[in-house]
Amino acid sequence: MSEEIELGYTADYHVHLRQGKMMEVVTKSVTPGGVSIAYIMPNLSPPITDIDRVVEYKASLEAISPKTTFLMSFYLCKELTPELVEKAAKMGAIQGIKCYPAGVTTNSTDGVDPNDFSAFYPIFKVMEDNDLVLNLHGEKPSVSKKHGESHESSEDIHVLNAEPKFLPALFKLHSDFPNLRIVLEHCTTKEAIEAMHKLNSDLKAGEQPKVVASITAHHLYLTIDDWAGNPINFCKPVAKLPEDKRALIGAALSGKPYFIFGSDSAPHELSKKSLHIGVCAGVYTQPYAISYVAEVFHQYGQIGKLKNFVSTFGNAFYSIDESKLKSKDKCVIVKKEFKVPEVLIDNNITIAPFLPGSTLQWSVEWTSS
Amino acid sequence: MSEEIELGYTADYHVHLRQGKMMEVVTKSVTPGGVSIAYIMPNLSPPITDIDRVVEYKASLEAISPKTTFLMSFYLCKELTPELVEKAAKMGAIQGIKCYPAGVTTNSTDGVDPNDFSAFYPIFKVMEDNDLVLNLHGEKPSVSKKHGESHESSEDIHVLNAEPKFLPALFKLHSDFPNLRIVLEHCTTKEAIEAMHKLNSDLKAGEQPKVVASITAHHLYLTIDDWAGNPINFCKPVAKLPEDKRALIGAALSGKPYFIFGSDSAPHELSKKSLHIGVCAGVYTQPYAISYVAEVFHQYGQIGKLKNFVSTFGNAFYSIDESKLKSKDKCVIVKKEFKVPEVLIDNNITIAPFLPGSTLQWSVEWTSS
Repeated sequence: MSEEIELGYTADYHVHLRQGKMMEVVTKSVTPGGVSIAYIMPNLSPPITDIDRVVEYKASLEAISPKTTFLMSFYLCKELTPELVEKAAKMGAIQGIKCYPAGVTTNSTDGVDPNDFSAFYPIFKVMEDNDLVLNLHGEKPSVSKKHGESHESSEDIHVLNAEPKFLPALFKLHSDFPNLRIVLEHCTTKEAIEAMHKLNSDLKAGEQPKVVASITAHHLYLTIDDWAGNPINFCKPVAKLPEDKRALIGAALSGKPYFIFGSDSAPHELSKKSLHIGVCAGVYTQPYAISYVAEVFHQYGQIGKLKNFVSTFGNAFYSIDESKLKSKDKCVIVKKEFKVPEVLIDNNITIAPFLPGSTLQWSVEWTSS
Repeated sequence: MSEEIELGYTADYHVHLRQGKMMEVVTKSVTPGGVSIAYIMPNLSPPITDIDRVVEYKASLEAISPKTTFLMSFYLCKELTPELVEKAAKMGAIQGIKCYPAGVTTNSTDGVDPNDFSAFYPIFKVMEDNDLVLNLHGEKPSVSKKHGESHESSEDIHVLNAEPKFLPALFKLHSDFPNLRIVLEHCTTKEAIEAMHKLNSDLKAGEQPKVVASITAHHLYLTIDDWAGNPINFCKPVAKLPEDKRALIGAALSGKPYFIFGSDSAPHELSKKSLHIGVCAGVYTQPYAISYVAEVFHQYGQIGKLKNFVSTFGNAFYSIDESKLKSKDKCVIVKKEFKVPEVLIDNNITIAPFLPGSTLQWSVEWTSS
């Protein structure tokens, strides 16, 4: 009999399920990918900034994937008012608000200038008071470097240092709102990992952290060499250097409750990844989300710690009430090889999954409740 | 009347003209691109390692571009013997030998392990004695990081540090063969620029350097953010950080005779740049080579120094005998805007040039001899 590990109510705390035909395709992959609870990003076009749309969007997702518990978020922007945020929180329409620095990734043009968070302090106050989570895309926007410009900013922000340069803003936010729960999303650098340890240095055993970081599956695999010449692996934040990857793996395996799984699965049609200019940023991991992560834990001989990372720690941080889950099925991974397809074709949409053609060792099954 | 600048016998000391149909297309672009003397890379498939092939290849190029003076090179590999190299040098069949670390770029699988140059010392000795140039692709091969490997080399070579990590090998070569002329090709990092200054720190005014670096046009424009998501700008060595780009521009403008122009123009069919996996490395600058460089010198108010960089210094290093040039036409750039096409289509081959759709300010003309 194959080895089996029960992972409980697995959760992916950073999911892009898109809209329209793409939504129909990728939302179906959440349950087969091993995820029970999915925290949904609001960067649709236009971004989600009101209660009607978030309720409608959630209903659309539930219709496609009825066993998934969807947690919803607003897109931080000037249109949000403290009153609206409070109302949405009290209704339970949203669990958090996502903050995108303007222009750093897909559909983030309506985002925020991270040099100027103060305009959003009334929102953050309401969030703190209503126990909403602030989800930070933690990058400073790169300096605009158009052909013809001969000068550059003295800050020299680029894709490699954009996250470390953002970290002071994270420390300031935590200092200004010590009870606001904050997630540094899809962190990619050893500097970010060190920041998380520092922010949680006073955390007592059993105490819940206020500031956590989510880590994707693909950043446990990739370094810069893997996306240089391979747009399938190009995402924002970009995968960094070998020392950064080691720091991320170390964090995921650390058993610290302030590192949680968030796949940042971000599908694009293959035609938008196969371009010589303007490739869309994003790696598609949803259909095999838990298997990708399990593979890394397995390689490091730490499969027993997987449940903490993909289930326990995130659910504790997000105060998941198990009685309210849409399904009581639990994710079980079974030691049974399978091959990741080269491409996935459905509903006339072609997407290349992460690690196409690779063999993964742990398959997803579900216990029936 | 438009401003004009006569640049003399312009030279591009690092040119890929390929073979077959691609050769026919791109070789035609050398003269319109403003280049009189072209130093030709030997990384054909199979690589050029014998006299018959290099003579035949040169004749093919001359048939297509009769006004270009082609300087030819061998591909350093175990098949080369000191006797063959000496014979080729004495015949004037080659002006140098190109050394590719195995696997770092297009058609480099037959290359050299830069940890083990000693096997080639008999070749280098013959080159030194016969005044041949050693052209170094100065990168240590990246550590193999296949999916499934859980360990990494302690050296952690990646696309960003591969050039700095190669520099000790350059110092050792120069030390072991102080009269061997060496070019560190297409250098991309401030560490490489600093190394060149150090290697030439004893150079007297008017004295010829033994070790020089070539600098491409595109590395005067690009940083990592420009190729992240834009495979058209993906090349090896990859463009690095803003501080590196500034160092390269500073070197090109420095008036030091050990910085020379070599475009590393490396065409690939558009279909091989528009892939989600396995994009070919290379930027195609040949058709507008001198105009791209002129643009940068102009932006920095240093157009008067352009001739040194694209003509005087390289020709002095390579000991060009002007009486033997195929054409005495001199390149003149004229202050006249033109637009770089989005794509170039010829002979059923489609290639995207560097900076497609951009406007450049200096056009190439030629004086008739």
